[in-house]
Amino acid sequence: MTEISGGVCAANGFSAGGVRCGIKPSSQKKDLALIYSEIPCSAAAMFTSNKVKAASVLVTQENTADGKIRAVIANSGNANACTGQQGTDDARRMVKLAADALQIDCGEVAVASTGVIGVPLPIGVVESGIDSLKNSLRDDAQGNADALEAIMTTDTRKKEIAVEIEIDGKPVRIGAIAKGSGMIHPNMATMLAFITTDAAITSSALDLSLRRAVRNSFNRLTVDGDTSTNDMVLIMANGKAGNAPIVLKEAAAQSTRISANAPVLNEEDLAVFVSALEYVCIALTKMMARDGEGATKLVTVTVNGAQCRATAQALAKSIASSSLVKAACFGADANWGRVLCAMGYAGVDFEPEKTNISFKSRAGAVQVCKDGMTCNFSEEEAKKILSQEEIEIEITLFEGDGSASVWGCDLTYDYVKINGDYRS
Amino acid sequence: MTEISGGVCAANGFSAGGVRCGIKPSSQKKDLALIYSEIPCSAAAMFTSNKVKAASVLVTQENTADGKIRAVIANSGNANACTGQQGTDDARRMVKLAADALQIDCGEVAVASTGVIGVPLPIGVVESGIDSLKNSLRDDAQGNADALEAIMTTDTRKKEIAVEIEIDGKPVRIGAIAKGSGMIHPNMATMLAFITTDAAITSSALDLSLRRAVRNSFNRLTVDGDTSTNDMVLIMANGKAGNAPIVLKEAAAQSTRISANAPVLNEEDLAVFVSALEYVCIALTKMMARDGEGATKLVTVTVNGAQCRATAQALAKSIASSSLVKAACFGADANWGRVLCAMGYAGVDFEPEKTNISFKSRAGAVQVCKDGMTCNFSEEEAKKILSQEEIEIEITLFEGDGSASVWGCDLTYDYVKINGDYRS
Repeated sequence: MTEISGGVCAANGFSAGGVRCGIKPSSQKKDLALIYSEIPCSAAAMFTSNKVKAASVLVTQENTADGKIRAVIANSGNANACTGQQGTDDARRMVKLAADALQIDCGEVAVASTGVIGVPLPIGVVESGIDSLKNSLRDDAQGNADALEAIMTTDTRKKEIAVEIEIDGKPVRIGAIAKGSGMIHPNMATMLAFITTDAAITSSALDLSLRRAVRNSFNRLTVDGDTSTNDMVLIMANGKAGNAPIVLKEAAAQSTRISANAPVLNEEDLAVFVSALEYVCIALTKMMARDGEGATKLVTVTVNGAQCRATAQALAKSIASSSLVKAACFGADANWGRVLCAMGYAGVDFEPEKTNISFKSRAGAVQVCKDGMTCNFSEEEAKKILSQEEIEIEITLFEGDGSASVWGCDLTYDYVKINGDYRS
Repeated sequence: MTEISGGVCAANGFSAGGVRCGIKPSSQKKDLALIYSEIPCSAAAMFTSNKVKAASVLVTQENTADGKIRAVIANSGNANACTGQQGTDDARRMVKLAADALQIDCGEVAVASTGVIGVPLPIGVVESGIDSLKNSLRDDAQGNADALEAIMTTDTRKKEIAVEIEIDGKPVRIGAIAKGSGMIHPNMATMLAFITTDAAITSSALDLSLRRAVRNSFNRLTVDGDTSTNDMVLIMANGKAGNAPIVLKEAAAQSTRISANAPVLNEEDLAVFVSALEYVCIALTKMMARDGEGATKLVTVTVNGAQCRATAQALAKSIASSSLVKAACFGADANWGRVLCAMGYAGVDFEPEKTNISFKSRAGAVQVCKDGMTCNFSEEEAKKILSQEEIEIEITLFEGDGSASVWGCDLTYDYVKINGDYRS
């Protein structure tokens, strides 16, 4: 696997673009994005688990149900959530504007929105911007960059990645852009991520791949414990790489609900594809964690030796979500008691008195807790380790081989600043 | 019911005191407290639900098992949690020091600790301070004030209250002190609260009363979602008021686990007592919420019209716990979309499209959301309302008569500051 450039435009046959149509009246930033495949695609998507779903989520759920999407129109600056029937009408109108401009079916278009909740979408400015949006489409890195800029809100870093792998002797590319820094918490429900690939793969196999990849990436991300109304991850595959299509075995493909262990015709190719897709998703996950609103640090929490993977993940999530742990990371304070405390209310079983805790970073590693009690560690050394931009909290238990990593960030003054006055 | 002064010393036959023994070396504040009843007491207690429990919690659980406690020794500056066997030995040693000084049985003494986790308790300084602690006991407001000062950590406000009621024609007093501002979240698990009363009441009836009162008070408090290792609420009743003892009916009293609907001999007296105890606990709860670490505002979230009380409480807790809602309260930003969003991930059923939201305070009331969509409210008026020190977020559903209030606070720069460098 090789990392390549170009984001969503790295995969053959995809183009992207972005313009400023005026949804954010006080900003000069782009706010309307388009991604488009020159030929029809297989598609799969996952959506927020929030009971309150944005209009764009509802409409895209409908349109992706048949596993076929070849264009995405997305806006920032307005979530089009909690906007009632008018919101749904507006989301459908966005789909129609894109479909007409691209001369494709409405059913082939996904729509996504991000921004403030509860304010009607200014559909008029979307309409007046649609031609220039279509004209902004380019199949190169610039097209990708324009689309990426147009989906960003409080993001301070650009989140894109692309990789090349080989399947069936053919080079296959997977590229992606994402946005998300606040209102992020595990169980999908987290952000916008658009992934393109030129692999040949059926929509059922693509769905399976996406769910496998998301389980170990976006679902292990936490920024502030809030789960947004708008989030989606969507992947389109147009088959231009020319590999023998990755296909589920007949029975599995016909099932309405594909099991995570569904039989696949070319299992080995699928494994290569899922592994690359997971790499892409984990890379985006870490970018989002590091760009958590106000964050100064990427915090990776790893639990090893738990009874099972689910227990390891629950413990790691509880630690990464704790405001007290996050504030201690900000202050580079080796306050491991808060780590053990957060494990204690994770709601799963473990032995506190057989828990080891270490802090790690490029500056070194220090064990701070052995058997649930303090080690005589150097506070100065721990502070140096925790002052790096990427730090890891590593927990070792002795109860099994369950292991999981969760990605989060520190809690800072700027988180409060950004969210204390987001709308004004 | 009348509010009176004196805190834990308001009830007849109780004295309290506090000294600085040196557990916080860099502080001149008192750090060791004692509360004592001149005669034996009934007692009941509730403890943290955290799997990681401080040594003091384990020891006090043992000592309260027989429903008899007449003294509490408590320290701040060190949690004596995650300190292994040595920690348990130290907690028992604290009990013995207090018991010897007061010439009572070790089994009659409760011990509580609060402060930093994972650092061995300097039991030597406790030992050398025990005589002056005993000598500090006074049965007046000063004794109460000394004990209160000695249990405070990052608290910036003193939390005490006392009330007088009449039971069986006799004046009965209930007094309390509490500490707690960070690491506070519902399900008890929240703070230290010591309550005294001169009511005559059996330990089983007292246990029942405490659980009823805590359900609607401390269990509806959230500051930062963290659940501490150390927390306890303990009540002692010495009977000096001379009322006919409040007693459970025989079968209920003999049961090992008392049901919340246990039959009581004098149900009316119990109701009066529970109501006063709940008043005391809610008052302390609101004081703790308002003094949440770094908080500038007390935020009350009330949900009415839910399917049942449990649903109302789950929705209210999810709102009061949301970092985004809390930051918006700090910024006086009428961002009601975050309120609806937090309801959406509360994990309970409700109809978003039939949800009304209002913001209220002394400065007025404004409805911001009707039927899940925005109202045309005045941003300026909303800002004025949300700029008060006590604000209420009121949700109205139309699905039943379930209703609940939860108390929390805003998320501020100072929360981050306090917790980014708590130990240093």
